Amino acid sequence: MSTELESSNNFTVDCLQYANWSKEIFEQMRNGRVDCVHVTIAYHENFRETILNVEQWNDYFNSYSEYIVHAGSYDEILSAKKDKKTAIIFGFQNPSPIEDDIALLEVWQKLGIRFMQLSYNNQSLLATGCYEENDPGLTRMGKEVIKEMNRLGIVVDMSHSSDRSTLEAINYSSRPIAITHANPTFWHSALRNKSNEVLECLFENNGMLGFSLYPYHLNNGSKCTVTDFCEMIGKTAEKFGSKNIGIGSDLCQNQPDTIVEWMRNGRWTKTRDFGEGTSSNPGFPPQPNWFKSNMDFGNIKNGLRHIGFDNAEINSIMGLNWINFFKNSFEKEK
Amino acid sequence: MSTELESSNNFTVDCLQYANWSKEIFEQMRNGRVDCVHVTIAYHENFRETILNVEQWNDYFNSYSEYIVHAGSYDEILSAKKDKKTAIIFGFQNPSPIEDDIALLEVWQKLGIRFMQLSYNNQSLLATGCYEENDPGLTRMGKEVIKEMNRLGIVVDMSHSSDRSTLEAINYSSRPIAITHANPTFWHSALRNKSNEVLECLFENNGMLGFSLYPYHLNNGSKCTVTDFCEMIGKTAEKFGSKNIGIGSDLCQNQPDTIVEWMRNGRWTKTRDFGEGTSSNPGFPPQPNWFKSNMDFGNIKNGLRHIGFDNAEINSIMGLNWINFFKNSFEKEK
Repeated sequence: MSTELESSNNFTVDCLQYANWSKEIFEQMRNGRVDCVHVTIAYHENFRETILNVEQWNDYFNSYSEYIVHAGSYDEILSAKKDKKTAIIFGFQNPSPIEDDIALLEVWQKLGIRFMQLSYNNQSLLATGCYEENDPGLTRMGKEVIKEMNRLGIVVDMSHSSDRSTLEAINYSSRPIAITHANPTFWHSALRNKSNEVLECLFENNGMLGFSLYPYHLNNGSKCTVTDFCEMIGKTAEKFGSKNIGIGSDLCQNQPDTIVEWMRNGRWTKTRDFGEGTSSNPGFPPQPNWFKSNMDFGNIKNGLRHIGFDNAEINSIMGLNWINFFKNSFEKEK
Repeated sequence: MSTELESSNNFTVDCLQYANWSKEIFEQMRNGRVDCVHVTIAYHENFRETILNVEQWNDYFNSYSEYIVHAGSYDEILSAKKDKKTAIIFGFQNPSPIEDDIALLEVWQKLGIRFMQLSYNNQSLLATGCYEENDPGLTRMGKEVIKEMNRLGIVVDMSHSSDRSTLEAINYSSRPIAITHANPTFWHSALRNKSNEVLECLFENNGMLGFSLYPYHLNNGSKCTVTDFCEMIGKTAEKFGSKNIGIGSDLCQNQPDTIVEWMRNGRWTKTRDFGEGTSSNPGFPPQPNWFKSNMDFGNIKNGLRHIGFDNAEINSIMGLNWINFFKNSFEKEK
């Protein structure tokens, strides 16, 4: 079965979404032929709060079983494809669900978590976020946690981390890491985007980059064109090859602005932080009109074809690269 | 009442203990005429676990009300002295009880917490611990938390923090901070002891230092003599004056070795960290024979007299300096 499905080479994978989940969105995943989505189940939630989010997802899986299924392994992703369902992979954008307890990682692995960011904008117990002024690199606990994540098959994600911590994580981790949702700074300069130095180190170590469609990560923001976006992918492939890149859209479909406030402020400040926004523009920015839902991956495929990618490359970038990465990343170490 | 009591100038204050509390120890506090003790109620405990420790202390206050009373203000400390009871002040050695939630500080203030260390050996969400390789200084959340502690009258304690974070905390805090339990490195070099640079900055900003009697902080460890200890106090007073120094014994009377393992390892590692100890010597070190319980503060007083301190200076160092610091530190900002 695996061989037959793989030979189709035709996967659509989105390695980051955090939508305001609903039947409509799960239907769109199917109608858009999206095979696998890595969904965020915690931003700043602690252990118990994240368990509540798992309970919510259990409800979704029970209620919408014709569209979606929870997956934690390569085989489960292939099974989902065979059953014409979207495989949902769980991840955290912050280590807050393990609180200060390294042993919670194994609990979360059993509950299906396959990605964890070591920091989200701010300093965590493990690593530094991209909004901090100074980055001392991995902490003592950070190193211990990476070892444990490597053992368990939970992918280290450094999307919101700063440079030194990211470089150290790439080198310290015995398994390739991921930056699930960010773009190169050579295309658009932003604290959340990634320098050539980070990307080189990431790709040299077989790590994956997922290109983001969150407007603050895009050249010209919400007005970014699909051609400009695809040319950025083209330049990245020219510089670094096309085997370690994919999509991580960061799609936050239908979320109210209170959610972006939670993402930015968590519970760490009594004043209000506007992150990439401003006090006069504090909410979610509008998505580009060519990428508003799971129905729109075809626009990216067409854009990639338009700028000269061949079918094999398009299939790699749109999903197969992530699928291969998942195959090597989600097994526990023997 | 205040004036009369203060004019006695005769306070014994210990600004850090973490004993295996019992009737015996509370009796010793009274027999040793100890007026006030800052006790640790959390090392690595999270919010809920620290609440359990508060419940335990409520039991102690109810059961041993002839010896001890909870105090959170200058007036309550004076009242306790008048009633011939030892005033117990609560503190945290780690910000773990506030988890990632700055608003918990006000909850803890109402429950009587008056000291919080910003980090304990490792990196925290707020600042760096003295066992980390790199110290980036205060984090974004660290700065927000200091502002809130200043507002509430919770003292910033940097006993287990590293140098840059400590210097930044001293300068960032609008109120004087404390290093409740540590000694100068000019006397005994140890990661936990404090450099001249840190001490100068602390004292220039009216911060307090409590001299520790934990053997790993002492010259010659458990064999340190009371004269050597008192000469260290003498040198500190010569260098920096005698108005901002006191005692913070770090006495861990009757604690089993499992407790020092908890202090060092918390839940941050799956291997075992020996901290100041070694694999062949992992437990609590024995106390010097002249400081084993709350009955032994007289030995320090005698030692100070022996090396030439006058009564007024001895009274300052043994308690009055801390009492004056508490008077200015525990009130909420108007």
